[in-house]
Amino acid sequence: MVRAQFGQETSTRGEFVRQANRFTDRITSDGSSDWPVEAGRYRLVVSKACPWAHRAIIVRRLLGLEDAISLAVVDPIRDERGWRFTLDEGDRDPVLGIGFLSEAYLATDSTFAGRVTVPAVVDVPTGRVVSNDYPQITLDLSTQWRDLHRPGAPDLYPEQLRGEIDAVIEPIFRNVNNGVYRCGFAAGQEAYDEAFDALFGELDRLSERLAGQRYLLGDRLTEADVRLFTTLVRFDAVYHGHFKCNRHKLTELPVLWAYARDLFQTPGFGDTVDFDQIKRHYYATHEQLNPSRIVPLGPDLGTWHTPHGRDTL
Amino acid sequence: MVRAQFGQETSTRGEFVRQANRFTDRITSDGSSDWPVEAGRYRLVVSKACPWAHRAIIVRRLLGLEDAISLAVVDPIRDERGWRFTLDEGDRDPVLGIGFLSEAYLATDSTFAGRVTVPAVVDVPTGRVVSNDYPQITLDLSTQWRDLHRPGAPDLYPEQLRGEIDAVIEPIFRNVNNGVYRCGFAAGQEAYDEAFDALFGELDRLSERLAGQRYLLGDRLTEADVRLFTTLVRFDAVYHGHFKCNRHKLTELPVLWAYARDLFQTPGFGDTVDFDQIKRHYYATHEQLNPSRIVPLGPDLGTWHTPHGRDTL
Repeated sequence: MVRAQFGQETSTRGEFVRQANRFTDRITSDGSSDWPVEAGRYRLVVSKACPWAHRAIIVRRLLGLEDAISLAVVDPIRDERGWRFTLDEGDRDPVLGIGFLSEAYLATDSTFAGRVTVPAVVDVPTGRVVSNDYPQITLDLSTQWRDLHRPGAPDLYPEQLRGEIDAVIEPIFRNVNNGVYRCGFAAGQEAYDEAFDALFGELDRLSERLAGQRYLLGDRLTEADVRLFTTLVRFDAVYHGHFKCNRHKLTELPVLWAYARDLFQTPGFGDTVDFDQIKRHYYATHEQLNPSRIVPLGPDLGTWHTPHGRDTL
Repeated sequence: MVRAQFGQETSTRGEFVRQANRFTDRITSDGSSDWPVEAGRYRLVVSKACPWAHRAIIVRRLLGLEDAISLAVVDPIRDERGWRFTLDEGDRDPVLGIGFLSEAYLATDSTFAGRVTVPAVVDVPTGRVVSNDYPQITLDLSTQWRDLHRPGAPDLYPEQLRGEIDAVIEPIFRNVNNGVYRCGFAAGQEAYDEAFDALFGELDRLSERLAGQRYLLGDRLTEADVRLFTTLVRFDAVYHGHFKCNRHKLTELPVLWAYARDLFQTPGFGDTVDFDQIKRHYYATHEQLNPSRIVPLGPDLGTWHTPHGRDTL
């Protein structure tokens, strides 16, 4: 039996400890793995609600890989069996022919007993999960799938910047991407307080870094921006209230708010955001945080389209 | 057995319906009731967390009635027996000699089975509750206790303005004071949505009203301002997140935010606000809304002391 929820990912100190990714095979362009790059062969399973999957949606779009890798979108609301294809006709993914993502997980590892996660890359011919290793999935889209990128696609993980990108994304993961979950899923006040301080400390450092430059790595968009964006765009809609990340709203942090709007207004970012699915997912899924499952009507999201002024940096 | 919680105050449509106030006797100056105005005779029992009790704390202070009516402060955290005097030595109120406010309720009406509420005015010699009728308590402090007011005390309920004050405070009660509870305690999405729209619709109307005048009734402070203030001062600290009143923070509504700061910086208002007790009360009390009982570290409350500019109106 697979697990739909986060219940077992808590340390003895009450901290949220995210489970390891189970499937870590890689699709490669040089024959170094069993999974060759091949247009039309793989299916990327995502939830539009999930920030980890959202990274892959954005990168696929920025690189123009829509025709090479098809997309399966799960229902934002999980039931006790986990992510499900109830947005599709007959409640089944039309390509994989399954009703629940867990079927692919169990077809790949019949002993799997963890939480089924998105994104997952599935090999269509065999129905097996190649990877649910979200940090590697996007990097491989950038580096292994290069022959299938659209003309003029950005290099989101350029060789000469990898050291710096890796150094920037590590604390962003720890304190921000996963940090909001550490706030929300803390089992006690102390674990929450620590996560809260780490989160806002990191946001303050990022504000300083971004005060004088348009992107995290300077004047070019990279993987690091994609990773920060998927948390920032969910911040006021869910993390601020639902996860108690409430020192300030994103809209009250001027540099980060302008930076996030700049990205939002860049093709591939805002057009992949579904605030309705995001809100319904979080508020309806975590019963331990919101027993009523009522979805807040706020915040006012109309201001994402206002001018950001970052293009003059 | 008295009730500590709100569980039974829900309509069949999922709306929160506040219970009626049980004790509605009045203390009068003209001998028209059994309870004469008398310095030192009555004890006002409050929680610093509670917005209804906070009204009475502010009015008592504005009118200089501190020596005439003593104050008992309950612990912001109720247990299953309700409000308790655990802030006092020996966990008993030193004047009334009781450990729980419910003891006074039951001494007055042995059949009482509702939720024990603050504020409550207790007759010290008999230990009986005279009133828990919060809207009348503050009006009577203004009108019946006049002989004991400090010199120069404001008239918060002046005869010639009563019609207009009554007309203003009715929708404030319905949509704002009680409206935030209707959002937070709604049992379903529809009841929540209605309460949310009523709340922010009313806040928009109040913003218009207050754009060109310093107080709700023009250029003089009245009971109406006290009633609006006690909800506004709790808005970002608890109602925004805990009760899902999240279209905007108070700090994002420029007129109301300046108006609230103006009052906060007026003696009798800000100096009676205890944000720590407010936050601990709400987040630790309503288990159905916040099962973890974790108290958020935010929001940043330092801006309550910033200039408001309303004195030029």
